[in-house]
Amino acid sequence: MTELLPSWNDTPTKQKILDFVAAVTDPQDPDYVPPEKRIATFDNDGTLWCEKPAYIQLFFTINKMKEMVEKDPRLMEDPAYEAAAGDDMAYFAKLDPHAGGDIKELMRLIFDTHAGMSEEAFQEEARAFLQGAKHPRYGVPFAQCVYQPMLELMDYLSERGFRVFIESAGGMSFMRSVCEDIYNVPVERVIGSAISYQTEMTDEGPVVVRKAGITEPIDDGPGKPVNTMLHIGRPPVLAAGNSDGDLHMLWMAENSSPQSLSLLVRHDDAEREYAYDIGAEKVLKLAVDRGWTVIGMKDDFRTVFAGL
Amino acid sequence: MTELLPSWNDTPTKQKILDFVAAVTDPQDPDYVPPEKRIATFDNDGTLWCEKPAYIQLFFTINKMKEMVEKDPRLMEDPAYEAAAGDDMAYFAKLDPHAGGDIKELMRLIFDTHAGMSEEAFQEEARAFLQGAKHPRYGVPFAQCVYQPMLELMDYLSERGFRVFIESAGGMSFMRSVCEDIYNVPVERVIGSAISYQTEMTDEGPVVVRKAGITEPIDDGPGKPVNTMLHIGRPPVLAAGNSDGDLHMLWMAENSSPQSLSLLVRHDDAEREYAYDIGAEKVLKLAVDRGWTVIGMKDDFRTVFAGL
Repeated sequence: MTELLPSWNDTPTKQKILDFVAAVTDPQDPDYVPPEKRIATFDNDGTLWCEKPAYIQLFFTINKMKEMVEKDPRLMEDPAYEAAAGDDMAYFAKLDPHAGGDIKELMRLIFDTHAGMSEEAFQEEARAFLQGAKHPRYGVPFAQCVYQPMLELMDYLSERGFRVFIESAGGMSFMRSVCEDIYNVPVERVIGSAISYQTEMTDEGPVVVRKAGITEPIDDGPGKPVNTMLHIGRPPVLAAGNSDGDLHMLWMAENSSPQSLSLLVRHDDAEREYAYDIGAEKVLKLAVDRGWTVIGMKDDFRTVFAGL
Repeated sequence: MTELLPSWNDTPTKQKILDFVAAVTDPQDPDYVPPEKRIATFDNDGTLWCEKPAYIQLFFTINKMKEMVEKDPRLMEDPAYEAAAGDDMAYFAKLDPHAGGDIKELMRLIFDTHAGMSEEAFQEEARAFLQGAKHPRYGVPFAQCVYQPMLELMDYLSERGFRVFIESAGGMSFMRSVCEDIYNVPVERVIGSAISYQTEMTDEGPVVVRKAGITEPIDDGPGKPVNTMLHIGRPPVLAAGNSDGDLHMLWMAENSSPQSLSLLVRHDDAEREYAYDIGAEKVLKLAVDRGWTVIGMKDDFRTVFAGL
């Protein structure tokens, strides 16, 4: 028999996952969940792919700003573009809203780099970056910096009749550009924060363009349950996250059915990945209070990244 | 061999559909569409279920207003509630935005009846109505007033590797309450106009409540391509509609791939259903101009409703 979840160590965490899936897929089990309700939602940054030393989408933003400076050197008069050109990561770290940064300024730079083109054109840019630009520590394309155990978990759930969704505060289109290739998740099952879309009529018909603005709500914190209802229409019975922004999603899962599984990935593996609890203080506490399952990368992951 | 689409007559329309599906699913065909891009979107009112003598959701709204009057007779002082109590359909017909009605007043009544409860509670009400209340002409529950040929088309597409979505100006939650039972379409593949959702924190965790307000955009006209990109992320290669509100969606499909199919259901069958072009004047003209496929109910549908 093939080993289930081979990139997981044989820990209580792995057993908990296997027991949960066995229970909810067994029609004789009192906690049986019929297929139509087998919804699983996974956060992306820090849950499926690496979010350190900075969000991958921030690297993309800075990279694009650099390209813009090359085309129009006058942009160097703008401190943010000057910082981008000089790879001044500290400048951008200060903008992180989770670190009390200036959200308006961050949004300006996101709109500068993420709006003003068709959806198709944007996704081509995003895909080229994710498959081409390399992670500063691992030296492989960002698209390969995904946690092998989590990929296996998503596949395993799909095989057991779950519909697996990604639900992240990160950009929806950014993730959709590679979701089929790296996660085996179809585009419509990727929920995230979204730019404003607008239908413009041309002689060749309607064209959907990306505009500077946000489609409310931002897919973070209390916005996650809202987007779950909008995009899925049913709460997840399994949810996985890693930060305070996932707190509402993880708690939402708890109330979905008699047995549910709220999984919290904890970054405690400085050797193979990173070790940090910053931005996860509240959810780590709540996980203990409510008995959620904490995945410790160090002990629970046999492999972190495939082929690294 | 089982006949494909048995509730369709053997007309050029049926042949067009069969030829299209054969082409886009044949890897040797120059117009082959890989499975991940096989997206089909169907309008609901007038395309999948009957929308005459009034939108089913309007019957639901009026029915609920009646129940509210029974509980609180003082509501009779409000002309709209008085009209509901007296089954004055003409009063409500005048509110139809497509007939130049007062959209604000219509929204007030929709918020009165569709907001202020949990999503789950609302869907239970909607389901009970759709499965219980009867169509005034056909005498069967509204949930049975669905076009059998269109159900067969959706199933046929699913069997050929399409992901079938419903995309309607009608209420998303209203349709989701019965979509699995009557359309065999999962809840997350139902896109529609949506009330405002809000996450409220309780001691038992987050609860998503329905609030008086609209999640922009209304899923009609230019709002359909926007919601297609938000909820699916990829244009449909087959789209089906029946009114001017579907014009943008049908045209969007045309640009999705070398071969696409834009289907326009025309209500020309007063004997078995209804005959009307009101609200479809623009799209009927455009269908001719652009060579879209018009489905004439009278000639193309062998059966309209199953079991009627």
